[in-house]
Amino acid sequence: MRILDQLYEGKAKKVFATDDPQLLVVRYKDDATAFNGLKKGTISGKGIINNQMSNFFMERLEAEGIQTHFVKELDKRETLVKKVSIVPLEVIVRNIAAGSFSKRYGVEEGLEFEQPTIEFSYKNDALGDPLINEYHAVALSLATRKEIEQIKRYAFEINDFLKKFWKECGITLVDFKLEFGRLENGAIVLADEISPDTSRLWDSKTHEKLDKDRFRRDLGGVEEAYDEVMKRMMRHE
Amino acid sequence: MRILDQLYEGKAKKVFATDDPQLLVVRYKDDATAFNGLKKGTISGKGIINNQMSNFFMERLEAEGIQTHFVKELDKRETLVKKVSIVPLEVIVRNIAAGSFSKRYGVEEGLEFEQPTIEFSYKNDALGDPLINEYHAVALSLATRKEIEQIKRYAFEINDFLKKFWKECGITLVDFKLEFGRLENGAIVLADEISPDTSRLWDSKTHEKLDKDRFRRDLGGVEEAYDEVMKRMMRHE
Repeated sequence: MRILDQLYEGKAKKVFATDDPQLLVVRYKDDATAFNGLKKGTISGKGIINNQMSNFFMERLEAEGIQTHFVKELDKRETLVKKVSIVPLEVIVRNIAAGSFSKRYGVEEGLEFEQPTIEFSYKNDALGDPLINEYHAVALSLATRKEIEQIKRYAFEINDFLKKFWKECGITLVDFKLEFGRLENGAIVLADEISPDTSRLWDSKTHEKLDKDRFRRDLGGVEEAYDEVMKRMMRHE
Repeated sequence: MRILDQLYEGKAKKVFATDDPQLLVVRYKDDATAFNGLKKGTISGKGIINNQMSNFFMERLEAEGIQTHFVKELDKRETLVKKVSIVPLEVIVRNIAAGSFSKRYGVEEGLEFEQPTIEFSYKNDALGDPLINEYHAVALSLATRKEIEQIKRYAFEINDFLKKFWKECGITLVDFKLEFGRLENGAIVLADEISPDTSRLWDSKTHEKLDKDRFRRDLGGVEEAYDEVMKRMMRHE
């Protein structure tokens, strides 16, 4: 397999074509952004952690019967993935109120929900990724009703898996963001990444934030937090 | 029945206690506000139209098997209603993209949906009535899962009824807002009002706006529009 042209450069990743039209290579960067690109910075070593953590979870999730875009880790920063057409929805699963949720609804960070919740945002930078509900996602043809049902099933299954896994590492999974894609045959697969960039992870005892909120909120110790969750994940294995 | 103290003054209505603790009196004002109270004005005769139109529809909807708070019209501006505990959700049913929906998702006004959609806002002035989905409404105990299912059933039935009714008047029902309440026995009933304040109504041929958007957008002819829809409604009977 040969790596060809760069197709796309996102906030935290670059994507390259390969000589197999069904496969792409993703390269994880150390660049970090927040607030829809308004805040920019670097988290040294982040690309390596996010790449390896995502791959670790995608492999585990495949074993649980959840289809993903993961094919093979090529390098500490590079992974071979299936080419998908991205469903333009950010899928957020929440176990505990935090971040934009707490602000939007005037609810203290840390409120634990009786049941996990799910919400969707329309992936559209120009519009600021607005919240969207299932009726409107279907009305605007962002996904079919059937695709949304599949995405919800997967998202809650992934939450069950990750919540248990992180708990065993002494970490509370507060919330996380997923993205899904369609394969050529129409199957929905988990795409993008699962990492401290896209998850809120709190130390279960101290409630210390071990995720990108350290960067967003200028809390310091950003690299140390990413290293810590990576270490705990590796130790779990 | 005696009318007692004023309990509450809202943007467009006053509410009074009566000597029956289960009943209230609503008095409709001509005051109009928009953009969460930022824009204020008066629409002469609006209170009369909104009162009579709401009562007209609530009676019709009761006949269709939809429970409402309506008891009896007392006067051209005053109505006796059942006391309810309001479910703090604004329920919006949309048939055609317009207003905040079009702005939020970058969609042209006038796009007709294949299926009607529903959305909820958390009724909370301080937070700016933010959009909320069903999972979060339940998580924040704004309503139970069962209540939300009942509200959705009612809302779509009301849409079917109103869409057909207005169509027969040469008017296209674009979208509308509903509020629901709980009776003491826990039953969900339609509350608030159904009027050109809470509905988007377009002339079916000319697409002329015959609703509160004339006030919101300074289009002029506000009173005439309210009179026109009222006239067409009366003629239908």
